[in-house]
Amino acid sequence: MSKRLILLALLVAAWVVPPAARAQAADPLPSWNDGPAKARILAFVRSVTEPGGKDFVPPAERIAVFDNDGTLWSEQPIYFQLAFAIDRAKALVAKNPALAKQPALKAAAAGDLKALAARGERGLAELVAATHANVTSDEFARIVREWVATAQHPTLKRPYTSLTFQPMRELLDYLRANGFKTYIVSGGGIEFLRVLSEELYGVPPEQVIGSSIETKYEVRKGVPVIVRLPQIDFIDDKAGKPVAIHKFIGRRPIAAFGNSDGDFEMLEWTTAAPGPRLGAIVRHDDAAREFAYDRASPVGTLSRALDEAPRRGWTVISIRDDWRTVFPAAR
Amino acid sequence: MSKRLILLALLVAAWVVPPAARAQAADPLPSWNDGPAKARILAFVRSVTEPGGKDFVPPAERIAVFDNDGTLWSEQPIYFQLAFAIDRAKALVAKNPALAKQPALKAAAAGDLKALAARGERGLAELVAATHANVTSDEFARIVREWVATAQHPTLKRPYTSLTFQPMRELLDYLRANGFKTYIVSGGGIEFLRVLSEELYGVPPEQVIGSSIETKYEVRKGVPVIVRLPQIDFIDDKAGKPVAIHKFIGRRPIAAFGNSDGDFEMLEWTTAAPGPRLGAIVRHDDAAREFAYDRASPVGTLSRALDEAPRRGWTVISIRDDWRTVFPAAR
Repeated sequence: MSKRLILLALLVAAWVVPPAARAQAADPLPSWNDGPAKARILAFVRSVTEPGGKDFVPPAERIAVFDNDGTLWSEQPIYFQLAFAIDRAKALVAKNPALAKQPALKAAAAGDLKALAARGERGLAELVAATHANVTSDEFARIVREWVATAQHPTLKRPYTSLTFQPMRELLDYLRANGFKTYIVSGGGIEFLRVLSEELYGVPPEQVIGSSIETKYEVRKGVPVIVRLPQIDFIDDKAGKPVAIHKFIGRRPIAAFGNSDGDFEMLEWTTAAPGPRLGAIVRHDDAAREFAYDRASPVGTLSRALDEAPRRGWTVISIRDDWRTVFPAAR
Repeated sequence: MSKRLILLALLVAAWVVPPAARAQAADPLPSWNDGPAKARILAFVRSVTEPGGKDFVPPAERIAVFDNDGTLWSEQPIYFQLAFAIDRAKALVAKNPALAKQPALKAAAAGDLKALAARGERGLAELVAATHANVTSDEFARIVREWVATAQHPTLKRPYTSLTFQPMRELLDYLRANGFKTYIVSGGGIEFLRVLSEELYGVPPEQVIGSSIETKYEVRKGVPVIVRLPQIDFIDDKAGKPVAIHKFIGRRPIAAFGNSDGDFEMLEWTTAAPGPRLGAIVRHDDAAREFAYDRASPVGTLSRALDEAPRRGWTVISIRDDWRTVFPAAR
């Protein structure tokens, strides 16, 4: 071949080699230590993408679902969205002290989690109504964006948005490079998460599923808006996760990643079906770099899923042993 | 260049020219007559896809939503899903005559639409419960598949699946070839439609939004299932359409296609926003080839949307004038 032809052929190769093939050339999961968890993930992806292989899965059916709190970012000492609600309660009460007449709002504004918890479900509903509802969806998105721009984690002293797990971000990229569609299926609020998901995880809003409050369509002075109402619509946790997956996606995932008993049914639904399946649990066992908790923690309790993981073939990902790095390098 | 080089370059061009550019080479909408509706659609797509153009929209935001009944397939003399419910009622009553004690089921099994309508909302709820619920999602999908394989339209004497609109199928393809993500947003049942949407329209289940009944996750003898319950969850019609679009997609579409006043709010939500927008209404005015109806029809009433179309800049697509062919050629 002529030199020009060789050059052209090389250029062409760079164009036409599918991203998946390129991703496999280098280590696609550099923040993972070599160990059983990484090996299992790599083997699974290889098996479902190998053309003509016995476990081949067509790209359209390569659906992977991820819990968010504790799976894609930290969740201690409290869910980050609860920190948002508390900060928002503070701001609202500062602006309008009369709001402190509502006990839940008063407790939240004072940062008194014990008093808030004592109000039970009713207290939580009051807090959600005051901090998440009675605004349009556009206004809510703006409020969330403003909050994440300045808020800091209480003990790690970093922005919440810097507390995503680098190994899981690599995993999301790796799966997408291999033709997977990646979904977030979170107990957290769907509209809260959608503000952040694209930037943090490369997951577009239409691939985020979460808990929701009721909304209403309204035309205000000729301008249509979606208004957020102070009523719970759906709790995307436990048995709600497979229900939501079925409703939003209408396909059964082939891979599911969680970290708590709230993800049990999602992993069960995903893995108790014929064909190649991957279920995995992130275990928080690294007090030095992140947090160490499982059975006793009220946030992200992991007990039954951990007990049943071996028998169900679920992979346990140890943060301490399996992750070389936990958080992305500071920018 | 050498001959081999030229040949290679040509091969390469066929590989790397984006699908959009190729689609524009031939007429992408051959079943459409040249006229204002076709011209408007072509101009809109050109404007939002022109790199550097003032109306350019990034691919991720190219969301187009389509009503189904009356927009993508026929809806006369009754919604096809109602025909399914009636056929299913007949089959159930034939198998278990005691079911005819339920008045709505008796009326449906007798094909007596008047008696069914006389039962009002309660009757419809009874019919849905009997024909759509108390089965798992997998069982329901199988029942729908079996029905469409044999059922025939009462007057057109063709399978329901052959009554999609060829011009709209071309439009769906054309939009996708230009980087659009196409969604169905139907008043019909989400699980009913998902069985058919990929084959009929090239729309995958995760891009189908519709009305729904409640479902429940259950483990039966170790096997997890999604069970369909006899309670309405959500009616995806009128103001419900923008609410559902916001919930499932989380982005505002830039193009919306409907055919009745049930699509009014969806078109309003889509088009009453800054930037390039396309709203269009399929008008059923062709009694010879399909059906002619609008203001007076109880199915697919089109009145307010037709009145307001000019002032809102919505394109009215006349089946009689704008479509060269209506249905796909028989296979």
